[in-house]
Amino acid sequence: MARITSPLSSDNQKITGEALQGALIDLLDLSLVGKQAHWNLVGRNFRSLHLQLDEIVGIARARADDAAERAVAVGVNPDGRAATVARDSQLEQLQAGYIEDEKVVGAFTDILGGIVARMRERVAATEEADPISQDLLIETTEDLEKQHWMFQAQR
Amino acid sequence: MARITSPLSSDNQKITGEALQGALIDLLDLSLVGKQAHWNLVGRNFRSLHLQLDEIVGIARARADDAAERAVAVGVNPDGRAATVARDSQLEQLQAGYIEDEKVVGAFTDILGGIVARMRERVAATEEADPISQDLLIETTEDLEKQHWMFQAQR
Amino acid sequence: MARITSPLSSDNQKITGEALQGALIDLLDLSLVGKQAHWNLVGRNFRSLHLQLDEIVGIARARADDAAERAVAVGVNPDGRAATVARDSQLEQLQAGYIEDEKVVGAFTDILGGIVARMRERVAATEEADPISQDLLIETTEDLEKQHWMFQAQR
Amino acid sequence: MARITSPLSSDNQKITGEALQGALIDLLDLSLVGKQAHWNLVGRNFRSLHLQLDEIVGIARARADDAAERAVAVGVNPDGRAATVARDSQLEQLQAGYIEDEKVVGAFTDILGGIVARMRERVAATEEADPISQDLLIETTEDLEKQHWMFQAQR
Amino acid sequence: MARITSPLSSDNQKITGEALQGALIDLLDLSLVGKQAHWNLVGRNFRSLHLQLDEIVGIARARADDAAERAVAVGVNPDGRAATVARDSQLEQLQAGYIEDEKVVGAFTDILGGIVARMRERVAATEEADPISQDLLIETTEDLEKQHWMFQAQR
Amino acid sequence: MARITSPLSSDNQKITGEALQGALIDLLDLSLVGKQAHWNLVGRNFRSLHLQLDEIVGIARARADDAAERAVAVGVNPDGRAATVARDSQLEQLQAGYIEDEKVVGAFTDILGGIVARMRERVAATEEADPISQDLLIETTEDLEKQHWMFQAQR
Amino acid sequence: MARITSPLSSDNQKITGEALQGALIDLLDLSLVGKQAHWNLVGRNFRSLHLQLDEIVGIARARADDAAERAVAVGVNPDGRAATVARDSQLEQLQAGYIEDEKVVGAFTDILGGIVARMRERVAATEEADPISQDLLIETTEDLEKQHWMFQAQR
Amino acid sequence: MARITSPLSSDNQKITGEALQGALIDLLDLSLVGKQAHWNLVGRNFRSLHLQLDEIVGIARARADDAAERAVAVGVNPDGRAATVARDSQLEQLQAGYIEDEKVVGAFTDILGGIVARMRERVAATEEADPISQDLLIETTEDLEKQHWMFQAQR
Amino acid sequence: MARITSPLSSDNQKITGEALQGALIDLLDLSLVGKQAHWNLVGRNFRSLHLQLDEIVGIARARADDAAERAVAVGVNPDGRAATVARDSQLEQLQAGYIEDEKVVGAFTDILGGIVARMRERVAATEEADPISQDLLIETTEDLEKQHWMFQAQR
Amino acid sequence: MARITSPLSSDNQKITGEALQGALIDLLDLSLVGKQAHWNLVGRNFRSLHLQLDEIVGIARARADDAAERAVAVGVNPDGRAATVARDSQLEQLQAGYIEDEKVVGAFTDILGGIVARMRERVAATEEADPISQDLLIETTEDLEKQHWMFQAQR
Amino acid sequence: MARITSPLSSDNQKITGEALQGALIDLLDLSLVGKQAHWNLVGRNFRSLHLQLDEIVGIARARADDAAERAVAVGVNPDGRAATVARDSQLEQLQAGYIEDEKVVGAFTDILGGIVARMRERVAATEEADPISQDLLIETTEDLEKQHWMFQAQR
Amino acid sequence: MARITSPLSSDNQKITGEALQGALIDLLDLSLVGKQAHWNLVGRNFRSLHLQLDEIVGIARARADDAAERAVAVGVNPDGRAATVARDSQLEQLQAGYIEDEKVVGAFTDILGGIVARMRERVAATEEADPISQDLLIETTEDLEKQHWMFQAQR
Repeated sequence: MARITSPLSSDNQKITGEALQGALIDLLDLSLVGKQAHWNLVGRNFRSLHLQLDEIVGIARARADDAAERAVAVGVNPDGRAATVARDSQLEQLQAGYIEDEKVVGAFTDILGGIVARMRERVAATEEADPISQDLLIETTEDLEKQHWMFQAQR
Repeated sequence: MARITSPLSSDNQKITGEALQGALIDLLDLSLVGKQAHWNLVGRNFRSLHLQLDEIVGIARARADDAAERAVAVGVNPDGRAATVARDSQLEQLQAGYIEDEKVVGAFTDILGGIVARMRERVAATEEADPISQDLLIETTEDLEKQHWMFQAQR
Repeated sequence: MARITSPLSSDNQKITGEALQGALIDLLDLSLVGKQAHWNLVGRNFRSLHLQLDEIVGIARARADDAAERAVAVGVNPDGRAATVARDSQLEQLQAGYIEDEKVVGAFTDILGGIVARMRERVAATEEADPISQDLLIETTEDLEKQHWMFQAQR
Repeated sequence: MARITSPLSSDNQKITGEALQGALIDLLDLSLVGKQAHWNLVGRNFRSLHLQLDEIVGIARARADDAAERAVAVGVNPDGRAATVARDSQLEQLQAGYIEDEKVVGAFTDILGGIVARMRERVAATEEADPISQDLLIETTEDLEKQHWMFQAQR
Repeated sequence: MARITSPLSSDNQKITGEALQGALIDLLDLSLVGKQAHWNLVGRNFRSLHLQLDEIVGIARARADDAAERAVAVGVNPDGRAATVARDSQLEQLQAGYIEDEKVVGAFTDILGGIVARMRERVAATEEADPISQDLLIETTEDLEKQHWMFQAQR
Repeated sequence: MARITSPLSSDNQKITGEALQGALIDLLDLSLVGKQAHWNLVGRNFRSLHLQLDEIVGIARARADDAAERAVAVGVNPDGRAATVARDSQLEQLQAGYIEDEKVVGAFTDILGGIVARMRERVAATEEADPISQDLLIETTEDLEKQHWMFQAQR
Repeated sequence: MARITSPLSSDNQKITGEALQGALIDLLDLSLVGKQAHWNLVGRNFRSLHLQLDEIVGIARARADDAAERAVAVGVNPDGRAATVARDSQLEQLQAGYIEDEKVVGAFTDILGGIVARMRERVAATEEADPISQDLLIETTEDLEKQHWMFQAQR
Repeated sequence: MARITSPLSSDNQKITGEALQGALIDLLDLSLVGKQAHWNLVGRNFRSLHLQLDEIVGIARARADDAAERAVAVGVNPDGRAATVARDSQLEQLQAGYIEDEKVVGAFTDILGGIVARMRERVAATEEADPISQDLLIETTEDLEKQHWMFQAQR
Repeated sequence: MARITSPLSSDNQKITGEALQGALIDLLDLSLVGKQAHWNLVGRNFRSLHLQLDEIVGIARARADDAAERAVAVGVNPDGRAATVARDSQLEQLQAGYIEDEKVVGAFTDILGGIVARMRERVAATEEADPISQDLLIETTEDLEKQHWMFQAQR
Repeated sequence: MARITSPLSSDNQKITGEALQGALIDLLDLSLVGKQAHWNLVGRNFRSLHLQLDEIVGIARARADDAAERAVAVGVNPDGRAATVARDSQLEQLQAGYIEDEKVVGAFTDILGGIVARMRERVAATEEADPISQDLLIETTEDLEKQHWMFQAQR
Repeated sequence: MARITSPLSSDNQKITGEALQGALIDLLDLSLVGKQAHWNLVGRNFRSLHLQLDEIVGIARARADDAAERAVAVGVNPDGRAATVARDSQLEQLQAGYIEDEKVVGAFTDILGGIVARMRERVAATEEADPISQDLLIETTEDLEKQHWMFQAQR
Repeated sequence: MARITSPLSSDNQKITGEALQGALIDLLDLSLVGKQAHWNLVGRNFRSLHLQLDEIVGIARARADDAAERAVAVGVNPDGRAATVARDSQLEQLQAGYIEDEKVVGAFTDILGGIVARMRERVAATEEADPISQDLLIETTEDLEKQHWMFQAQR
């Protein structure tokens, strides 16, 4: 069933669809892991990090929605179901239970570093395939690199 | 590491923790499956359902946050990681790809019906164990039963 | 035609439905009689009472909507038609024409006193039948008892 | 007790008072029947109509308040009590219980058609009697004819 | 110097200009006398009347601006200078010094009654001369008659 | 296909429909020519006129929507398609390219003067045919005459 | 009748009362003359000055209210009646009819210059008599000197 | 008269100017045809489409303004006059009169599909000529492709 | 003088009144001690704690108002005078002068722990006596336990 | 421990600190006694005074915060603990239980009169010692003298 | 000390860092020189330019913040200290003292023209080096070219 | 060219002008150095200080605008050009590159301490010369001393 016609050629649609689906998984899992740390955080910097993690969750949710709606706009079905996120996510996972503030800073520095590296590959991949999607991925990457700096800055 | 002291006895803490963790999984997966349908929906009632699904996602996210923060407030670590949600969720899962509006109405009627039944068990379970948590679960259930009615009404 | 399935047993649905329908009639008639006094009021305290009556109308309308939507959510059809309100309302009715401020204070003290007494019976009746509906009736009662105090205080 | 002096002659006051009281009954019953349908509605277009009915209720409540306050400003006591509404309303009444979306569209097309016809008589009647009241009735009629169109358009 | 061309004939312009200039003087002086009472008021109902007088001042200022801008739009220069207001105003003047709340209610009942009577003459005068200006005068009169009722109601 | 029944007689419907359609064309073309000048304007008063032209465009768009929705509410199909506007508009057209601020003031004084004259004919034509539509046309004319004054004032 | 006791000695009350009453007259007449120019203005800078004059009127009204309420707070009755303003105002009066933009700039430069000079005398007079009132007069003067600069700057 | 110097070479200015002027015509006609359908729409999905069409009109108006202001910023005069739009538009035109909801969905799917295809050519054309304009065209295309998906989704 | 009639029996009124008065004292003193720490705080985490203490003060003030208004609504006079708070408060008092951030975290962990324990007793005591008051106490407790967690988390 | 260096000499710091601490005690107790009357008030003017007392509480809380933060900014520790307020407050205390509206007006006239007298001494004391603190005390006194007038006015 | 790791290669980091630092200096000095003209401006167009210059300052401040935070996000330290701005800025400097409106228009046309030319070089330089930073520079350039047009248009 | 006449004598104008120009340089450089630290900050307290520095920048910008506009209002040209700031500023300068959180706290404690000392000299200098400007400098000093306390408190 191909309900939405794509403005892209078949090859470009495939490249673009993979970039957007990859971004979606990164962003959805970032929103989940961000909340996990928001809740289980302990340590002297609790309040500041608790608030900062909610900003990241807000960015991740909004950008995930952008990526998924962009995917369907080019005729590719986004898949953001729990099982898909759990299976495909490349994010370093947090362990269960309380997590110290210093560990959170370290973990999110690494998590954001990993996502940013993958996002830059997607920006490169879509340059020819779909400049519209590339622009959306560029703006998402800018947001994430800004958060990456802010976590590094407080190590 | 037991950083947060509980206002509850050990038994009541266990009962309450299980109720809240169960609610958390239901609500997080509802937020994911709600977005999945929000993106992949097709059919004559697309726009109306597209907006309604976002309302459900908003409720699910806000109530999941309430439940998880309540859990840690009674000394129990909430677990909302992707793998945990995928493993523990009892929600009927949507299949990948486009999904017709009528199927969405049917699926969410069933999904909400299932969650509501489990929420009522949690309301009953916490009545003695922790009336504070029970009150939070009651308000969550009220929101979900309202949505359940609205999906049934449009079948 | 039973379009909306109830989360309640048949007995509990009946008890709950009666409590909510009773609250609906009380609240709708309170909104009508509140406006009647808002318009026909005279006396030295005109402006203050004129504004206070609009607050009561606002509360009555919002809480009536809550009660009616809760009724349909448990599978019971609310009935808020004019003839039903006129037939079933137990509120002391105002006479037509201008009404002095002191009489308004007296009349609404009595009207609110009557509603509050019936609401407390509904709170008791739904405790076992449906704690979700009970919670909604408790919050409504809290609003009305606050208004009851404020009218008594200015006698 | 004639507390409010009228800027109108006795004849014009009588004509204007009847027009405004008639409008008040139409508008109050429209607000009640609008809520009745808002709650008991079922069918594929549930959500869209559920919202649209609340817009009508909002218009009806605001315009009823305008008409009643205008009546007292010309020295005529408005009567918006439940029994008066039930006795004097000319609106086609909905039957109790669930009501299908198509029936709602039909019923409100008829209800609004009836009100609009009576409002136009009131506009004509007050042209000489009180141009201030006429202006208020004209604006009310414009709102109602717009809603009448919108219901007809979706038949 | 006739900088602004009028959409009206010379006769109609004269009639309309006089009606609007008359309204302007009434409204400007109402704003001044309203503030005078707002400041010098004493008595048990101080706070309620103090606020109500500011509402009247707000209405008077906004409607004076409407009338004056309408005058210049039909090519007639409005004159709202202090000396003109003092010379042409027909409002009953308050005496200097403290003024009791009951006297304020009486004085504004009379003041508003006087303005309303003159406004109705202006509405009649402009019906043929300029229906656009008439509409503006009708809306102004509606506001003033509402305030007139509210002052009468609290005598 | 006559989907929307008219509250007007056939003759009155025809008169009213022509008045509203005429207003619609005037207002839509005013919104287009207003933007054309907003973009291509040059001269010392650039910024002030650039902002003022956007106010006119805002008024024109809102009032065009009012007129068109009123037309369909009386059972007449509004026609605001580009070709119809281009064919039926009586507005003086601007030439392509930059346009000096003084020329803009002159051109819009003329354009608004022309529209206002036609609007007054429509106000007269609808007085008997449909006082509801007349009221809407009166309010539109008031807005336009105010703008007409403001352009004349700065010549 | 001395209803409000003064926190000031009799001498200081007299000095302060005169300063505040003087400021009140200056500010009320500034609000009237500002509107007079706002309405009757013509010339190339019409729009910019039309808006600027309304800012002055806004400042004058707010500061007049401050001064008058301060007067009664120190037990002195403010007098802002039209006849008092007309009799006591020292403002250069505008002539009736259209007024060119350049003349407005000149006139308000002079008017504001005059008020500012009198305000500085009042600031000096109240320094010992009532530092609370002085502070209010200082803030008023700051606002007026800012407007004075802005009018001078555009000469 | 070349009042605005261009940051672009003559060739690039020509390419960019044509792309922006083309976008302007598409967007202005989209705003007109969107309103035409908003007004003349009939059918079961009336309300939902009526609102959706206004969202498209809002996007079209805002993006048309962006394109036209960008054109003049690179020294090219935008032309958005009614005759130019009527002459140059490539949009499928709606026929006069009522239009069924299904036909609207079909028509706007086609209209948006056509605009999107032309926008992608403009994005390609400006990549070398002016990356600033290209970025603006990319963002516009993203908005339009999102609307294109939403119309396709409800077929 | 028993001005406000109670909806409760004499025994239940006594139980409920004591619970609410106890909550009032706890909450008022929490608002005072929260401000005391807000002002005298020093240490590396100054800014974060300074803001967090103001959140607690906001909660304490709002909930104190709820408890006191609830008390009078059941016919019991709340007593929140300074001497009563000083005499009856069971809160650990801060010493005068600067207080280090770590000490603040410790002190508020203890203070909140103490209040929460007493609040839970009040929740239990009012379950039978007055479910309306119990609901209010439950919501207050939920807020306080959330703050308790947040202070513990940053130890 | 002298953590905050003072911009004042030791003598001036002592004078200023005493003035600010005195103001703090007056304002904190005003906020407590204002709420006490807000809750326990009875009488015909209940609603108007109930609202006015909340305005006073709002002013007292905001100004207390200003005074205390100013104290620490000049190196003096503010002390706003319950026992200190109870010990040092010079406010006339209300008796427990219901309090009639007339008594409230009398009591707050006296309370505000007392505070204002002490505030004026503090304004005088800080003129040389610290003009920055004096300015803050002047603004606080202006607010309180305005409230003092309003209570006197309604005796 | 290299605290923030860069997502860029060393060469690309150097190119990007220079582009962003160059933009930062241009934008910071634009904000300073914009305020200098905002304050010292004289002439007939004072008010319009005074406001327009504040818009430019707002843009310059927001975009400077973007550029500097982007620099640190790619591991380059931005330098916006006064001495650096004074030393490195290439903006034509205004002379001290009053500056006529025409000169301001000329000066800012030149200043913006210069910045825009340098910004386009930075856009070109970062295309390969860092498309994320390029996108930010493109959006900044769009804002500045729009302002450049508006200043040219009023010459 | 002396375009703006001063309300001050020549001597007082000189004293006042120097005080305001001095304040302007302090505040502009505070805004620049505040942003420099906002961007280059590292350390455990990054987020809290990052936000606090932006508050200081906001205060510095708003107060610099006040001082400069006050200067021109007394006929003195403010000079806020980059070279002037760099030449005249007495602020301790930050070194380039990353700066640790503890160093930021120390540096801003010193910077604010220095500014506050100079501001107090300006407050003293303008007491006789211009109480209007003094009031503005007093309010600015209050803001800065509050920030000074907050930085000291977290050492």
